[in-house]
Amino acid sequence: MGDAGSGRRRKWWGWGYEGEGLSDDEVGRLAQMLGPRFGVDASRRTPPDPADLGLPPPRVRPHRALAGIAADDPASRASHAYGCSYRDVVRALRGEMPHPPDLVLAPRSEAEVASVLDWCTEERLAAIPYGGGTSVVGGVEPDVGDGFAGCVSVDLGALSQVREVDALSLAARIEAGALGPSLEADLRPRGLTLRHFPQSFECSTLGGWIATRAGGHFATGPTHIDDLVEGLRVVTPAGLVETRRLPGSGAGPSPDRLFIGSEGALGIVTEAWVRVRRRPRWRAGGAARFATFELGAEGLRALAQSGLMPANCRLVDPVEALVNGAGDGSSALLIVGFESAEHPLDAWAEIAAECVRDHAGVIDEGSWGARDDGQGSTIGASPGRAPGAQGSSGSAAPEAWRSSFIRAPYMRDALVTLGMFCDTFETAVTWDRFSELHSAVVKAAGAALAATGASTGFVTCRITHVYPDGPAPYFTVMAPASSGAELEQWGTLKAAISDAMLAAGGTITHHHAVGRDHRTWYDRQRPDLFAEALRGAKEALDPAGICNPGVLIDPLSL
Amino acid sequence: MGDAGSGRRRKWWGWGYEGEGLSDDEVGRLAQMLGPRFGVDASRRTPPDPADLGLPPPRVRPHRALAGIAADDPASRASHAYGCSYRDVVRALRGEMPHPPDLVLAPRSEAEVASVLDWCTEERLAAIPYGGGTSVVGGVEPDVGDGFAGCVSVDLGALSQVREVDALSLAARIEAGALGPSLEADLRPRGLTLRHFPQSFECSTLGGWIATRAGGHFATGPTHIDDLVEGLRVVTPAGLVETRRLPGSGAGPSPDRLFIGSEGALGIVTEAWVRVRRRPRWRAGGAARFATFELGAEGLRALAQSGLMPANCRLVDPVEALVNGAGDGSSALLIVGFESAEHPLDAWAEIAAECVRDHAGVIDEGSWGARDDGQGSTIGASPGRAPGAQGSSGSAAPEAWRSSFIRAPYMRDALVTLGMFCDTFETAVTWDRFSELHSAVVKAAGAALAATGASTGFVTCRITHVYPDGPAPYFTVMAPASSGAELEQWGTLKAAISDAMLAAGGTITHHHAVGRDHRTWYDRQRPDLFAEALRGAKEALDPAGICNPGVLIDPLSL
Repeated sequence: MGDAGSGRRRKWWGWGYEGEGLSDDEVGRLAQMLGPRFGVDASRRTPPDPADLGLPPPRVRPHRALAGIAADDPASRASHAYGCSYRDVVRALRGEMPHPPDLVLAPRSEAEVASVLDWCTEERLAAIPYGGGTSVVGGVEPDVGDGFAGCVSVDLGALSQVREVDALSLAARIEAGALGPSLEADLRPRGLTLRHFPQSFECSTLGGWIATRAGGHFATGPTHIDDLVEGLRVVTPAGLVETRRLPGSGAGPSPDRLFIGSEGALGIVTEAWVRVRRRPRWRAGGAARFATFELGAEGLRALAQSGLMPANCRLVDPVEALVNGAGDGSSALLIVGFESAEHPLDAWAEIAAECVRDHAGVIDEGSWGARDDGQGSTIGASPGRAPGAQGSSGSAAPEAWRSSFIRAPYMRDALVTLGMFCDTFETAVTWDRFSELHSAVVKAAGAALAATGASTGFVTCRITHVYPDGPAPYFTVMAPASSGAELEQWGTLKAAISDAMLAAGGTITHHHAVGRDHRTWYDRQRPDLFAEALRGAKEALDPAGICNPGVLIDPLSL
Repeated sequence: MGDAGSGRRRKWWGWGYEGEGLSDDEVGRLAQMLGPRFGVDASRRTPPDPADLGLPPPRVRPHRALAGIAADDPASRASHAYGCSYRDVVRALRGEMPHPPDLVLAPRSEAEVASVLDWCTEERLAAIPYGGGTSVVGGVEPDVGDGFAGCVSVDLGALSQVREVDALSLAARIEAGALGPSLEADLRPRGLTLRHFPQSFECSTLGGWIATRAGGHFATGPTHIDDLVEGLRVVTPAGLVETRRLPGSGAGPSPDRLFIGSEGALGIVTEAWVRVRRRPRWRAGGAARFATFELGAEGLRALAQSGLMPANCRLVDPVEALVNGAGDGSSALLIVGFESAEHPLDAWAEIAAECVRDHAGVIDEGSWGARDDGQGSTIGASPGRAPGAQGSSGSAAPEAWRSSFIRAPYMRDALVTLGMFCDTFETAVTWDRFSELHSAVVKAAGAALAATGASTGFVTCRITHVYPDGPAPYFTVMAPASSGAELEQWGTLKAAISDAMLAAGGTITHHHAVGRDHRTWYDRQRPDLFAEALRGAKEALDPAGICNPGVLIDPLSL
């Protein structure tokens, strides 16, 4: 959980690093701002010391051969018990931790990963892979039921190197435990970048992205990590799977695609060949305003269907733009960005501007344009500085939006300590049903807020990714938390919003994975027979059923 | 096997439609041209009448409920016994047909597909889905071993409609048996197109493309049908699988990707929602020459890594350009084409030309440029006219190349009747190993030609698709056939070339699927444990193991 060499320590109870994020003064101002509307008081909840959590003693001692990579102290166990969801932060602040892992094992090699799975198979211990611990869906939580003798969190942090770079093919072999900033730092001297920048970039890992089908930086085109994987190595209880590095293939169903998104249920990804690119030099785009979110969505659809493939193409509704300091609440904000390492982008900026104007958008003339950075950009250049949207502008709106994007997870933690409910709900849906889905979610969220006594709360929407056939809308709900009943309130909102998403044809997740929190809706969404097929595959690869039991399918009964 | 309403009849023994392709005069001129070099005589082999094949009587009679969709006459059985590979044509011309299907069943609805699979499961009959019958890898051949009471070819030709169009999301719901020209004809009045144009376009079907992960028109980007599938319906012996229409999702491993490329081994695709696009209006690009194929490959790599995403980007080696009438044999030919329904492409053409010149390419100035077709193009507009590369030019080279592309399969049949060996071998590999692979294949093919007494033969190469991380090279071998030992000669060449491709890091197929012909190399390429996982999935979906047994994995032993 440390950041090797940096001296920084990850918070055990929420997002990011200790001592980073909002200052006490900033939190104080936040409390003053929120107080009048939401009735929150200024007293902050503070997390307990892990030593005071009263964790049950570990049910298992590590095998002798694994003792050197094992930890069972309360701090290690507590920091591997939860991800970074609202629900996780609430429970951590309360000091509730009924299902900590018995042990944390941190293998230093692929062989040690195999030894860990062998031992877990022998002893019937659930093995949960742990990358950066940023799951917001209960994906790393050891809540595996009673069928196991114990539970081990397998921390991949020691496997963090860029092992090989193929500059001709623009590909790199990278270990699964590499954090975003670390792998970018290793690629930078070669002029290369993976450019996979989920909001969790600072604290999440390549292996975690692959296991969860993470969505990255690109708002259009190859944004899911799926498209960036050229080949994989996965350790399963039955042995090693290594797929061939291939730019494209038609030889049977893709082996990579079976493991991408498998959330640890089939084994542990140890490394991957991924497609990288040259660091961008040219940028273009800017900001635009639309009178309503609906009109903005029409403009966004036109851009998504234009074939221009902007790297960034996001639409923020009027209220969210206001909350983020990127607007006055009177209009929806569109951010469009192009980038290239190879050629100027003037034509792209011009055609995109025309497209925006054709759809009643008003270009922010001060922001719009194309530029040549010459030596490459500094965005995303320093480890620990999460790159967000590429607004390519000198105007205030995109900069404010970017800053807000980077700070959002820290802000969320601060809000929770102030007694606010704050969570996000994301999906993707085809264009023909988007308007229906948007209305249904807003209505369902409003009703759920009212039902939980939080009718002063509000729901906003931005579209984070966009495809020719549909957008990926991302809803944020903020409200006063139901003190003492935060989890029930969360459950009410989660169910109402998820039901609405599914009913309107959406997916339960565009880029946050299924984990334990989304199982109910995932089970309704995916074909039953696909679950049976997946179970058949799992029985072949993990006959004892020890790999992250309970995600995607029910634990195997032996 | 007919083309509904057109009155045309498919040839039972090779490519295309009866009475189409090369005229007798053209074949005569071909024989005269080839005679001196290859020693072939002008006497043509002609196919026997199916009634004279001496097929064994069907081992099974159709279930009463299926009698209305069943055929067991020799012509129906013969036309479903083979695909369209060199080996298939040789065997058909010889009248060798040891494994015809016992029956051809042509379900008229998804429910009838389910009834067929139910009946096959009960009676232990192998069920082989049949789309257009254009497999070149033995994918539809009923050579299923002795473990079955019979074998049924399930012809999807009656399921050929475009069922629904979502013009907002640019998607269409299309039945699996729709032929390329037919589905394009249905989309055209709405200004839409799927633009999936494999060389087999005229005679292949959507379901076949999905079952085989076919590669299409686009030379870069989303060329595999994989990327065009938004949602699927698959009938398996265990029941119906329907995936949700989604523009993107991160909910577990992709269900679609398990079925895409499954070659009928998991069930039968009955329909799909696919991503369509507006018909292009603007085009740009042209032809260029490079002194050598190697230099051309460098230019091609630069274009593939430029982010420009040309729709067409193909490189033909000097000899193949000569053979196709698109060059004098002194230089490699590059064809680049951009297309858009949304905006002019002048900037794309200019930047691509600069990229070509930077890599020592010589632009064919007469061909290069950008144009506005105004009302949309006629390329691919008439059913039965297979669209090929989009050369967007007035020069002779791209036109000659396109004509050659469209006529190639007919030409292949003519060559075989003249006693020529003519086959193609395709793969994909990362750029760092491309040169090694190219040399190894040329050397292996040369040695195999010499060993089979065909040292006057030759091997050429074109790159048909290209990715940032590697090309998909496509080798053509032409030589005098070993009269009476054509299959042994084919086996020698196939093994030598496939071994070389695998050893150099390539895939056994970029876009022709595995079928029965590629199993040996597929088994070496794919991880063993992936085969076990696939077997686990098959046991769940097809417990009796009746779905196209022997493709991808060995038949289930019951």
